[in-house]
Amino acid sequence: MNASAPVVILNEPQLAENIGAVARVMGNFGLTDLRLVRPRDGWPQERAWASASGADWPLDGAKVHQRLEAAVADLRLVLATTARPRETKLPILTPREGAGRLREGIDRGWRVGLLFGGERAGLETGDIALTHGIVTIPIDPKFHSLNLAQAVAINAYEWRLTVEAGVPTKFREGDPPAPQELLIGLYEQLEAELDAGGFFHPPEKRDSMVRNLRVALGRARLSEQEVRTWRGVVTALSRGRGRVLAKLAAQKAKRDGLE
Amino acid sequence: MNASAPVVILNEPQLAENIGAVARVMGNFGLTDLRLVRPRDGWPQERAWASASGADWPLDGAKVHQRLEAAVADLRLVLATTARPRETKLPILTPREGAGRLREGIDRGWRVGLLFGGERAGLETGDIALTHGIVTIPIDPKFHSLNLAQAVAINAYEWRLTVEAGVPTKFREGDPPAPQELLIGLYEQLEAELDAGGFFHPPEKRDSMVRNLRVALGRARLSEQEVRTWRGVVTALSRGRGRVLAKLAAQKAKRDGLE
Repeated sequence: MNASAPVVILNEPQLAENIGAVARVMGNFGLTDLRLVRPRDGWPQERAWASASGADWPLDGAKVHQRLEAAVADLRLVLATTARPRETKLPILTPREGAGRLREGIDRGWRVGLLFGGERAGLETGDIALTHGIVTIPIDPKFHSLNLAQAVAINAYEWRLTVEAGVPTKFREGDPPAPQELLIGLYEQLEAELDAGGFFHPPEKRDSMVRNLRVALGRARLSEQEVRTWRGVVTALSRGRGRVLAKLAAQKAKRDGLE
Repeated sequence: MNASAPVVILNEPQLAENIGAVARVMGNFGLTDLRLVRPRDGWPQERAWASASGADWPLDGAKVHQRLEAAVADLRLVLATTARPRETKLPILTPREGAGRLREGIDRGWRVGLLFGGERAGLETGDIALTHGIVTIPIDPKFHSLNLAQAVAINAYEWRLTVEAGVPTKFREGDPPAPQELLIGLYEQLEAELDAGGFFHPPEKRDSMVRNLRVALGRARLSEQEVRTWRGVVTALSRGRGRVLAKLAAQKAKRDGLE
């Protein structure tokens, strides 16, 4: 694993040829770590190697995950490349700004990643909610069907420019944000408690409510310590609810007994 | 023809799929004019349209040329994208600098173009001698096999950024450089005269000598008026040589007669 460059994560890629073409541009621009989430046709696929023109190492080392959550678990900064969503509370970045953020993360010693959606479906809002920013490539609105490997190439090229510039980023001091794994643990704890509390109502709105919560918490860029603190907060709150319910039940029983 | 964006010129492209992929990225980044010099498998090729994902218009309007000279005839600025040549007297530009030059040309009202070599052979030094600068993409020297459409995409993306920035370039006043057609006329006149004068010696060095001459003259960025002037210079010199030779012959004949 090469901690000095971003990981490339392909969510539900379809064509093995495109995965190979992605490996090729990764090789061109010095990226090595590839992660595949639910590749449609399974993995490995011989046609990926055939279309990589010799850039075998990202394919040889590719990790396959069944859940996007697992694919981003160890990362402290994840940027999604996608068309600008109609509504989002995440920052919208150009590829150049995105590369700058990734460079800043690498310079702090973080593991960072670039997330790309599959050829047809792109990324869903639930996937994007696991990231910290959206990179939009400035394409002509009249023809926005961008090939997957081209989207990777533009980002990888901008990343490479930060490598060649060779100037370490200046950044403010402070604790690094927690790895995504810890964040996701917090999200899931929170959501389970909210489910138990009947928070997600009506049920058909649950997904969008969960996304909004994740995006908001994600923007906070919690440190490991803060995640622990917030898990404690959720625990305390849910236990408290239990206690309140128990108390109310006891009061009701008492009233019932009095009547 | 869209005079507000660079022309894309593919010199001896091989695979129709790659021509289609080039059309697709042209569509993504707002380029429309495609020129093909000696496409290996002829033209049109159905597979190009199949791989363009709907970006048909660059293919529908593509012009085919047998000589690169004809493909650049009406352009006033041509940049070649290629690996950095070992020796060149042309400026070496990043894609960003190249896009800046093209933007400057467009803002002056010039027709400008981006030249790309074929998949296997790339560009020869004789092709590069017809251009005004070399764009090198900052790829990892350990893996420099860049796909043709990717090379177009990086340049087209940088071009698009200049469009979105929307700020007209400031530039110094002066006559615009002549269209390449006029330059090439000057080159060919000059070379024909030099051939007649036995300048290119030994003959196996002719090609490299021609290239060096073209590059040097190309760097001068002659205006139309200057090209006319220089054609006159060549004409005058070669007629002069004829007169000198005639005079020498006459003198020799006189001496021969006296002896």
